Amino acid sequence: MVRGYHFFLGLLCLYLATLATVAPAQDVSSQYHVNSQRLQSALAKLGEYGRNPDGGVTRLGYSETDMAAREYVIGLMKEAGLSVRTDPAGNIFGHRDGSQKLPVILFGSHIDSVVHGGNYDGDVGSLGAIEVLRALHESSTKTRHPLEAVIWTNEEGNHFGIGTLGSGIAAGLIGPEILNRKDDKGVTLADWLRRYGQDPAKLADARIRQDLLAASLELHIEQGPNLYEKKIPIGVVQGIVAVARWVCVVSGTANHAGTTPMNRRHNALTAASKDVLAVRDVVLSETGTQVGNVGFMKVEPGAPNVIPGRAEFPVELRDLDDAKVVRMWEHVSERFRQADQEEGVNTRCESTDDVKSASATPAIQAAIRDAAKSVGLASIDLPSFAGQDSQNIAEIAPMGMIFIPSKDGISHSPKEYSSPEDIANGAEVLYRTVLLLDKRLNP
Amino acid sequence: MVRGYHFFLGLLCLYLATLATVAPAQDVSSQYHVNSQRLQSALAKLGEYGRNPDGGVTRLGYSETDMAAREYVIGLMKEAGLSVRTDPAGNIFGHRDGSQKLPVILFGSHIDSVVHGGNYDGDVGSLGAIEVLRALHESSTKTRHPLEAVIWTNEEGNHFGIGTLGSGIAAGLIGPEILNRKDDKGVTLADWLRRYGQDPAKLADARIRQDLLAASLELHIEQGPNLYEKKIPIGVVQGIVAVARWVCVVSGTANHAGTTPMNRRHNALTAASKDVLAVRDVVLSETGTQVGNVGFMKVEPGAPNVIPGRAEFPVELRDLDDAKVVRMWEHVSERFRQADQEEGVNTRCESTDDVKSASATPAIQAAIRDAAKSVGLASIDLPSFAGQDSQNIAEIAPMGMIFIPSKDGISHSPKEYSSPEDIANGAEVLYRTVLLLDKRLNP
Repeated sequence: MVRGYHFFLGLLCLYLATLATVAPAQDVSSQYHVNSQRLQSALAKLGEYGRNPDGGVTRLGYSETDMAAREYVIGLMKEAGLSVRTDPAGNIFGHRDGSQKLPVILFGSHIDSVVHGGNYDGDVGSLGAIEVLRALHESSTKTRHPLEAVIWTNEEGNHFGIGTLGSGIAAGLIGPEILNRKDDKGVTLADWLRRYGQDPAKLADARIRQDLLAASLELHIEQGPNLYEKKIPIGVVQGIVAVARWVCVVSGTANHAGTTPMNRRHNALTAASKDVLAVRDVVLSETGTQVGNVGFMKVEPGAPNVIPGRAEFPVELRDLDDAKVVRMWEHVSERFRQADQEEGVNTRCESTDDVKSASATPAIQAAIRDAAKSVGLASIDLPSFAGQDSQNIAEIAPMGMIFIPSKDGISHSPKEYSSPEDIANGAEVLYRTVLLLDKRLNP
Repeated sequence: MVRGYHFFLGLLCLYLATLATVAPAQDVSSQYHVNSQRLQSALAKLGEYGRNPDGGVTRLGYSETDMAAREYVIGLMKEAGLSVRTDPAGNIFGHRDGSQKLPVILFGSHIDSVVHGGNYDGDVGSLGAIEVLRALHESSTKTRHPLEAVIWTNEEGNHFGIGTLGSGIAAGLIGPEILNRKDDKGVTLADWLRRYGQDPAKLADARIRQDLLAASLELHIEQGPNLYEKKIPIGVVQGIVAVARWVCVVSGTANHAGTTPMNRRHNALTAASKDVLAVRDVVLSETGTQVGNVGFMKVEPGAPNVIPGRAEFPVELRDLDDAKVVRMWEHVSERFRQADQEEGVNTRCESTDDVKSASATPAIQAAIRDAAKSVGLASIDLPSFAGQDSQNIAEIAPMGMIFIPSKDGISHSPKEYSSPEDIANGAEVLYRTVLLLDKRLNP
C-alpha cells in the first residue's frame, strides 16, 4: 500500500513508501534517513587509498595502504559517535550503546581489495554501515540493542593466500596456527599483526562468543549480473553458496610428437580437455543456478613437439545446496574415469577447499524484504555466489545480507560500479533492517 | 635369393645374404665389414661426455661438453685415416679421397643431444659413418667417389632454440643473421663459434655448393616404434615429414567464477579444450600416418575462482604430404571457428614453423633396400616423423636415410635404446649402400 512518492535527485524515480504493518512512523518514514551525498564522498575518499593508475584500487589486506585506509575509516567511526576498538585479528568495531543490556546487532563488511580491484566490493558495506550509525547518531534515535559497525580484516586474501581471515578468526574457524604463515616476502602474519598494533599472542581473544551477537548484517554489491539486468534494486540473500575445489592431475606419457603414432599416445592434455568440458556438461545438466569452473591448465613437459605427459587443473563447484555439489562431483568424477579409459591415462583429484553453504536466517531475510518494501523498492531473493565474511559469521550469529546491483555483473576489476542511487538504496534498506530487527528480535 | 645364413652372436638369427645382381663379390660379401665391437666401444666412450646421473646424456650443441666430445670424435676420424676439417659453422668433415675427380658421397649425423637425452639419437649415425670409413681404410678398399663422414653441429637446438643449425647453414637455408642470436645467458652464436675456433665473419663459407655432393646418407635410430614392434631391422626412409606449427590464442572474458551465470560466460579454456580435441579428430579423420599435437596450454589469469579469459596453445601437424598438412589445417581452422561461435570467444592462430617435407631420392632408397637385402636383412619403407639434418641437405644433394629400431619407440630420453645387433646391421647397410652408390651414381 503505497502512501506517496517523489522524484529523488531528479534522475531516478524512487518509490519511497512505508507499510503501516512493518513501518511504524517513528522509525521507518517515507524519507531517506541515510545521507547519500556524505556516503558518496566517503567512498570517493576511501578510493584514494591504493588507487590504481587506470582506476579502481589495489589495497591488499595487511599492507601500508590498508593501514592508512583503516585510519581513515576509524576517523569516520569516531565522527559517527562510535567508540572504536580493534581486536587482536585486526578487525575494527565501532560501538553504539543500546538502551537495554542485549546482544549486539553487528553490521559491516571489509575495505581490503584484490590486486587491481574496484571501489565497491567491501567499501559499500563498510561505509554504508558507518553511515547508518551516523544517521542514527544525528537523529539521536535510540535502539534497544547495542549496534556495531565492523570492518573485517583481509577478506580478499590475495596477500597471504587465505580469504575472510578476520571474520574466520572471529568465528573461531581459524586459529593461532595461521600466525606463522608467511607472505611471499617471508613476513609472517604475526609480524603484520604487530605492525597493526596488535599482540599476536592474544589472537584467540578475537573470537566472538555466540551469545554476544543478536544478528549480523552485511550490505554488499552483488558481484553478479542478476539485479543489474533485471533492474531490481535490492537482493535478499538466501545464503552463501558452498564452494568446493579440487586439484586434479592427469598422468599420461610424454613422448615425441612426431614419431609416436596417434593410436599409441597417452596424452594427458586430450584427457584433460575432455575433463574441462565434462565439468561444464555436468553443471549444466542440473536445474538451478549452480556454477562450475576450471581456472587453469598446467601442461608438462610443455613443448610444441612433445606429447603432454602431465596436466594439472583445478575444479571449482558452487551451489547453495551442499548435496547438489556432492552429486555434481560424483558425476564429474565418473566422466573423468571415462576420459581416463578412452585416453589411456590416469587422473587423481585432491580436495583443496570444502566450504559448506551458509543459509541466511529466514527472519532476517524477511526483515530485509520488509525494509525494502517500506522504501518502495522491489527485491528478489538470490544466493551469494561469492564467498563473504558473513559466511563465517553465520557460524556464531543469525545472519543476513543485502545485495545491490553491480553494473554488468563485473567485480574484482576497476570496472566495478554501483550507482549512487543503488548505494543509497542499499544503505537505507540496511538502516531500516537494523531498526526492524531491533524491534523484532527477542531479545 | 638367399645363398646362406648363420647365427650371429648366438642371439639373433641374421640372414646374411648377397644377391649377385646387386653385390659383386669384392665389395659386398656375406661377412660384416664393420666392426660391431669397435663401434660399441666408441659409442660407450662418447656417452661419457655429458652423462646424466640417471643415464643418457645432456650434451647441448655449443657447450663445453659438446666441445670435448667433438675432440674425441675428431680423434676417431684421424684413426680412420681421414683428413679432418671444420667449417665456419662448426660442422666437422672427415675426408677420404676417391680414385676419380668426382663429387663427394657424404654421410654422418650429429653428436649433440637434447636436455636429458639418450645415447643413440645422432651418435649411432655419426660413429657409424666413421666406422664405415675405418673399415674401408683397413681393407684399403678404393672408391671412385671421395667419401666424407660429417658431424653436423647443433641438430637438436635446445641451446639456441633453433635445430638442424649446422646443416641449415651448409644448405644455405640459414644465413649470417643467426650470428646475433643470444642464448639465455646472453652469449651470441658468434661468441660460441669463436669458442669453437671459427671465424663468424666467414659463416657463408660453410655453404656447400650443390655440385660438390654426389649423395648424402644418414644412419639414424627411428625414434618411433614401427621397426621395433614389427621386428624389422632396417627402415628405408621415404622422406622427412613436413612440420607445420602455429600458436593460437583464444580471447574470452575473465570474470568471477562464482557470480557469473553459466550462460553468460566467454570461457577461453572451454573453447581451447574443444580445439585440442578438434586437432586430434581432424588428424584421425584422414587415412595414413599423419600426426598432430597440442603440446601445452597457458591460461590467464589462471586462478581456480576466475573464468579463463585467455588461452594460448601450439598446434603441430606432420605428414610426408605437404598438401595433406594444408588440408588438415583448413579443417582444424573450421573446427576452431565453430568452437569460437559456440563459446562466444575469438581464436587467432599464427604460423610459427612451416618446414616442407623432403623426399628421399628414389635411387638412394633403392640402394639402401638392395644393401639390406644383400645382408639378408628385411626392410620396410617409412617416413621420418622427426626433423633431421638430412631434411636440409636434401636441398643440395640426392638424399637417403637408413633407420634402425628404437626400443619401444622411445627417444629424447635416457631410456632411448638400440641393440648392438641393430646398430651393427645399420652400419653394415650404410657401408654397403655407400659402395653401391659409388658404383651406381653417374658420376
